[in-house]
Amino acid sequence: MSRRAVMVVMDGLGDRPLPEFEGRTALEAAETPNMDRLAAEGVNGLMDPLAPGVRVGTDVGHLALFGYNPLRVYWGRGPIEAAGVGLDLHPGDVAFRANFATVSTDGRILDRRAGRLREGTGELAAALDSMLLSDGTRVVFRAATEHRAVLVLRGERLSPLVSDSDPGPLGEGGPVLPLLPRMEESQAARRTAELASEFVERAAGILAEHPVNRERVDRGLPPANYVLLRGAGVRRPMRSLAERFNISGACVAAECTIVGIARMTGFDVVTDERFTANLDTDVDAKAAAAVDALEEHDLVIIHYKGTDIASHDEKPKEKVRFIERVDAALERLISAAERYDLYIAVTSDHSTPCHLREHSADPVPVLLWGGDVLTDGVRSYGERPCVAGGLGRLSANALLLTLLDYLGVTYRFGG
Amino acid sequence: MSRRAVMVVMDGLGDRPLPEFEGRTALEAAETPNMDRLAAEGVNGLMDPLAPGVRVGTDVGHLALFGYNPLRVYWGRGPIEAAGVGLDLHPGDVAFRANFATVSTDGRILDRRAGRLREGTGELAAALDSMLLSDGTRVVFRAATEHRAVLVLRGERLSPLVSDSDPGPLGEGGPVLPLLPRMEESQAARRTAELASEFVERAAGILAEHPVNRERVDRGLPPANYVLLRGAGVRRPMRSLAERFNISGACVAAECTIVGIARMTGFDVVTDERFTANLDTDVDAKAAAAVDALEEHDLVIIHYKGTDIASHDEKPKEKVRFIERVDAALERLISAAERYDLYIAVTSDHSTPCHLREHSADPVPVLLWGGDVLTDGVRSYGERPCVAGGLGRLSANALLLTLLDYLGVTYRFGG
Repeated sequence: MSRRAVMVVMDGLGDRPLPEFEGRTALEAAETPNMDRLAAEGVNGLMDPLAPGVRVGTDVGHLALFGYNPLRVYWGRGPIEAAGVGLDLHPGDVAFRANFATVSTDGRILDRRAGRLREGTGELAAALDSMLLSDGTRVVFRAATEHRAVLVLRGERLSPLVSDSDPGPLGEGGPVLPLLPRMEESQAARRTAELASEFVERAAGILAEHPVNRERVDRGLPPANYVLLRGAGVRRPMRSLAERFNISGACVAAECTIVGIARMTGFDVVTDERFTANLDTDVDAKAAAAVDALEEHDLVIIHYKGTDIASHDEKPKEKVRFIERVDAALERLISAAERYDLYIAVTSDHSTPCHLREHSADPVPVLLWGGDVLTDGVRSYGERPCVAGGLGRLSANALLLTLLDYLGVTYRFGG
Repeated sequence: MSRRAVMVVMDGLGDRPLPEFEGRTALEAAETPNMDRLAAEGVNGLMDPLAPGVRVGTDVGHLALFGYNPLRVYWGRGPIEAAGVGLDLHPGDVAFRANFATVSTDGRILDRRAGRLREGTGELAAALDSMLLSDGTRVVFRAATEHRAVLVLRGERLSPLVSDSDPGPLGEGGPVLPLLPRMEESQAARRTAELASEFVERAAGILAEHPVNRERVDRGLPPANYVLLRGAGVRRPMRSLAERFNISGACVAAECTIVGIARMTGFDVVTDERFTANLDTDVDAKAAAAVDALEEHDLVIIHYKGTDIASHDEKPKEKVRFIERVDAALERLISAAERYDLYIAVTSDHSTPCHLREHSADPVPVLLWGGDVLTDGVRSYGERPCVAGGLGRLSANALLLTLLDYLGVTYRFGG
């Protein structure tokens, strides 16, 4: 039987003690017979997305899970989002992560996500795409998942050293931040900040009049009348999974960020309209797609976003239910072990404690199951049980290397 | 309630099995109800000051505890000691850590610390300060805690690449080492070594005749008749705590090294004549000062030197008693948790096993207590119990980042 591996990633899984569960975390409170079985038969540990005490975004967390050192390959979320929507960046392009937002006439952010709108974003994006800025710089603008979008500035002598206008979740209710050069002495940075500001201003004019927004207002929904920007970056060269380890990978995901990272790193992307990157995703269909993908791929990564969404929205019970649905779907993967010499890893890209409503630097639990791993006495999958695991405390990119080593595809360093 | 953190550092806390305590360490043998309670309610682990197997000095251990990477910011103990006595180094200054010592007429070191003298060091230092060396290089000389002092050479084209004349504790009874250029091909290093030697020779002449020493000899005390040098260095730029995390810090300490690091890293220093950096310090007054400092500071670090002193002097029972006094003083911090959303960390800068009488590379125990940490089943604070802790094994600068992440002041890396 040929060796295969699946990594199941529950975004923002890690949590802190929750009073509503008598101090257990969401994962500890959830009924997870499959994960518990895999933990008991496998090897477990705690994993730092990057390093202890370092808080990461989903993009950085996933670059590490995909086996890269984010300190070397990461420069801004923009280029990842661009890859996520299938945009090929040209050399010199500067890409931003964008949000459709609802902003009041006096410039306060009423809703950073314009009600997490899903419909009409393609039309809104089309109305902003191809705008020509004052110095001839061209705008490429694409809708991504829900309220998310991508802005690319394409022109001469642009710089990614531009600050964010999006103040993040804690800035809701406050003003939009000015887009400023991160390096005052760089003329390119100053110019790019001005161009981005020009785009935002003209976009607001166009969005205000757009039929999609008129309809939203009529229906009492928050209009997508503003574009918040963050994560300016340029694309950096990255070697693909095939180039690095001569194997093929697939990624089952819906969120543009994850899709972007998968594309940048040479994974085939498996997606489907039933996958929503939210709590209402078809959890089981994702697992089924992963099992299908195993036929043609050595390594499959499945991304579930629901855990992170529930955490940011401070809904611990929904987080528990979502974890339980993922647990049920694991049945399919366990069955696939009859056909392949299969390794299963279950873990996360970072912690998002529900009552913090934000990512934290807390390490995440990890389990690794397969025919020849050394078991460690851990009996259930959770933040606390995994402390005693045989993997100890490792970093996310070490986990992928460990998994690939079980597949026998890593290179020997030395004679 | 606003979030605050206190880190309690017992210098040289870590130990090895001690036959006098049936193989327990000093910490394990001590009665520490408060630390045990914090361990049981908190999360624990083992901490490497820098990395496994790397033995550090108090200065390097504290730079790491204060959240810096010593490999980047450290160059010699001299500049830290200089900051500790309030000396502002000029560009080009070379600073040495100095010891008043007792040396025999034939150049053997009888007592590296001249009986840990406390009185008269100000007068002795004044007699050496402002000396003009043969090429016009000026001497700045200041007394520090007890036998410790600081030498700064201020002149043209000086180099920090000068070896130590102090052979360390194992060299007691042997000869003073020659001050040599660490890089034979550097003219500046050769010259600086010669200037330092000139200073030491002339200083010995002055000290021999000094009234403070005549009186010491009359009283049967070892005279401070020699200046041993070590840790030549120059100041490197460091970003302060406020610049890095936008919070304020205070450090409650007496030892010049710690005070120096606190000043270099932008902590307010809280000191008092009751704090002696020795076994006779007012342990409780330090804890009380820390509680006061919490009013105006987000992070307070308390340094206790007694554990290290007892270890270097091979006095395990005194080490135990000192730990028990620190434990009693923790009561004040625990009470402060009624007023603040408080995190308490208890740890050390390095191990100093009593029967080694020197620092070792053994990891130190660490506990981290606070409202929302994940408990781990550890029931008492000690080198062995902490092995099973939820922090696993981390480095000292990761501990500070972890603590700051609980305070919510770390930055997210990524989108």
